[in-house]
Amino acid sequence: MRINEHVLNLESSYLFSLIGQKVNKHKLERGNQNVLNLGIGDVTLPLAPVVVEAMANAVAEMGAPDSFRGYGDEQGYLFLRQAVCGYYRKKNVELSEQEIFIGDGAKSDLGNILDLFSKDNTVLISDPTYPVYVDTNKMDGRNIVYVEGTVENHFLPLPDRNLQADIIYLCSPNNPTGAVYTKEQLQMWVDYALDNSAIILFDSCYERFIQNRDLPTSIYEINGAKECAIEFCSLSKTAGFTGVRCGYTIVPKELIRDGASLNALWLRRQSTKFNGVSYITQRGAAAVFSDQGLLQTEENIQYYMENARLITQRLDSLGIWYVGGVNAPYVWMKCPDDMTSWEYFDHLLSSAHVIGTPGSGFGSKGEGFFRLTSFARRRDIIAALERF
Amino acid sequence: MRINEHVLNLESSYLFSLIGQKVNKHKLERGNQNVLNLGIGDVTLPLAPVVVEAMANAVAEMGAPDSFRGYGDEQGYLFLRQAVCGYYRKKNVELSEQEIFIGDGAKSDLGNILDLFSKDNTVLISDPTYPVYVDTNKMDGRNIVYVEGTVENHFLPLPDRNLQADIIYLCSPNNPTGAVYTKEQLQMWVDYALDNSAIILFDSCYERFIQNRDLPTSIYEINGAKECAIEFCSLSKTAGFTGVRCGYTIVPKELIRDGASLNALWLRRQSTKFNGVSYITQRGAAAVFSDQGLLQTEENIQYYMENARLITQRLDSLGIWYVGGVNAPYVWMKCPDDMTSWEYFDHLLSSAHVIGTPGSGFGSKGEGFFRLTSFARRRDIIAALERF
Repeated sequence: MRINEHVLNLESSYLFSLIGQKVNKHKLERGNQNVLNLGIGDVTLPLAPVVVEAMANAVAEMGAPDSFRGYGDEQGYLFLRQAVCGYYRKKNVELSEQEIFIGDGAKSDLGNILDLFSKDNTVLISDPTYPVYVDTNKMDGRNIVYVEGTVENHFLPLPDRNLQADIIYLCSPNNPTGAVYTKEQLQMWVDYALDNSAIILFDSCYERFIQNRDLPTSIYEINGAKECAIEFCSLSKTAGFTGVRCGYTIVPKELIRDGASLNALWLRRQSTKFNGVSYITQRGAAAVFSDQGLLQTEENIQYYMENARLITQRLDSLGIWYVGGVNAPYVWMKCPDDMTSWEYFDHLLSSAHVIGTPGSGFGSKGEGFFRLTSFARRRDIIAALERF
Repeated sequence: MRINEHVLNLESSYLFSLIGQKVNKHKLERGNQNVLNLGIGDVTLPLAPVVVEAMANAVAEMGAPDSFRGYGDEQGYLFLRQAVCGYYRKKNVELSEQEIFIGDGAKSDLGNILDLFSKDNTVLISDPTYPVYVDTNKMDGRNIVYVEGTVENHFLPLPDRNLQADIIYLCSPNNPTGAVYTKEQLQMWVDYALDNSAIILFDSCYERFIQNRDLPTSIYEINGAKECAIEFCSLSKTAGFTGVRCGYTIVPKELIRDGASLNALWLRRQSTKFNGVSYITQRGAAAVFSDQGLLQTEENIQYYMENARLITQRLDSLGIWYVGGVNAPYVWMKCPDDMTSWEYFDHLLSSAHVIGTPGSGFGSKGEGFFRLTSFARRRDIIAALERF
C-alpha cells in the first residue's frame, strides 16, 4: 500500500502549537501572570436563546416515537434550505433550494469540493491567506500561484491578467486581514474568472460582520457570478456555531464546466461521501434565520464589533497602520519598529502579557504583520489594550 | 477549469430512485394500497432516554456564558474518546485515546480516508457490497478487484492468494448480506494483508447486532490487526444516530506504511479538512457508552433482532435459502423460482405490496438475491410476512 506522496510531504502546521509552547514557557517563567488572548479565532458568547430553544425542542422530538427522525434529506432539510434562500432574498439574491447544500461547516466543504476538480488545475490564492486553502490543494498535488497583499493594495489583491488560473480562492471579509472587497473589485475578479473559464471559491464566512451596506456580502451580488462562483458560508462566527457545526455551500445551476453541472456533481459527491448534518443542529440553524434569531445573533455581532472598534481606536491613537476591524472581526496591524511578526509576538507577550497571531503564519507576505481578533470578552480586550 | 474525469464518468446511482419510482407507480395504480417497507436501511425507534437527557443538558450548556463551548478537541472530546476506549476494553481490546477519531459517521470517514492513499493502489472489495466502497474509489480512479460472495461460501469470501491488493474493504456483520466472519476467517484476511503490506478498512457499523459471543465484534480481536487495519464504526444503527450523525474511526499507532504513521497522517487530514462534531452530539454519544446507555440501546437492538427472527422463521417455513438475520439486522434471501432480483421485487410489490431491496443493486453477484431489513416497526414486519 502506497501513501499519497503529497500528503506524506505536507509540512506540519506549527503556527498554533508554537504559540502554545511560547505561552506555556512564559507562564512558567512569570508565574502564571494573567495572559490576555487577542489571538483567539473562536467565539466566546453563548448561543442565542432562540437557537437553544429550537435545539432543545428538536432533542425532545428525537426522543419520542412519533417525531423521531432518521436520515435527513441529502442536501439538508428543506426547512433550512428555504430559510437560507429567504436570507439571500434580503440581499436581492435569488436562489433555489436545489442550489443550497447544508454541511457541517465551511472548512469541510472547502476541502471536499476539491474532489470535483482535476489535479492539473492551477490554483490562485492570496498571500497572506487562511492556510487551509493551501494545504488542501498541496494534499492533491495541485500547482499554486499567489497574488500578493500589500500595504499599497490594502491587502486586497486584484487579478493579474498575466497569471493563468483555474481555481481562485477569495475570502471577504478576509481571514486573516479583515479587509473587504468592494463590488467593483469583486466584479474584476468575476470578469477575470469568466474570461479564463475559472471557478471562484468564495468564502463568505464573515459576511455578517460587514457594517457598510454598500459592500457586498455575497459573490452573487456581482454580475456573472452564478456562472463562475461557488459560495461557502458558515454559522460558526456569525451565530456562535464553532462548537455546533453547521454551514452551507451554494452551487448555482448555471455553473457548468466540461459540459457538466457542478451542482449535480457536488450532489453526487456529497451523497456518496457524506450523510448530512444532525436534525437538531439544522433546527438550531434554521432558528438563526428567523426574525428573532437574526436580532439575537446581531446583538452578539455588535458586541464583537464594539471590541474591534476599541482595538482600532487604540491603534489609531498609537499611529499604527492597520486594515480590517471596521467590517470584520479581525484587525491586521503592521508590527511597530519594523519588527518581524515573531519578534513582535515575543515582545508583546513578554512586555504586555498579550497574545496575538504572527502574520507570517498566514504566508510570506504576512511577515511584519500581526492579527488581532475581537472575539475575546470585553474586559479582556480593554485590559489588553491598556497594556499596548 | 477541468473537472476530475473520474467524477465526471461516475454513473449515477439509480437503485433507490428506481425503487421509489416503482413504488409510486404501484400506489397510483392500486389506489394507495398500504405498502409495507422491508427495504428500509434506516432505524425507526427513537433515541434512548439517557441520550436525550445528555443532549438536552448539552444544549442548555451551550446557551449559558460560563458553560458555552466553541471549537472542540481536534480528534473529538476526551470524554467521548475515553468512553470508546472503555467500550473496547470490554472486548479485551486495549486502545489509547490518541487512536480514536470522532467523526460525523462512518460513511464520511470511509470516503475521506482515501485522501491518504495513492491513486495507484489496487482496491479489493467483496461483491455484493455497500456501493459507497466502490464509488469513492472510482472517484479517485483506483483499480478495483473483487472477491465473490456465493451460496457456497455463505457470502463470506476469503482471500485469494493469486490476487494482489493494497486496500481491502471488509464489512462484518455485512451490509447487504448480514453474514458475519468468524475469528478464524478474519485471521486469514489479516494474514493476507500483512503478507501484502495491504491495509484493511474494517467497517464494524453493525457490530452490536452480533448475538453469538464467539464471533468477533472488532478487527482488533484478531492477532496482528493493529499493524494492518483501520476500523470504522458508527452509532447510526447501534444507537439510532442516523439523524444525529456520530461515528468513530480507530487508527492504531502501530499502523505504519511508507515509513509514516497512518495515525499522524489521518490527524493531519482531519485537522485540515474537518472541524469536529457538535459538542451536543458528542455528549449524546458518550451517554450511549454509559451503563444505562448500553442497557437502553440494547433494548432497541433486541427489538430489531426479534424482527429479524420473525423474518428468518418465515423464510425457514417457506424453505427459502438465506444468510444473515441471526447476528445482523439484514437478511439476504435467494429469490424464489430463479427470479432475478428485480423480477422478485416487482412480484413482491404487485402481489404482496411489500418492498425489499434488489440484491443486484449491490453488485453483479447480488443478482438473484434480495435484502430484507429488520428496522421496520413490529406491526409492519408481521403484516408484511403474512403476505409473503
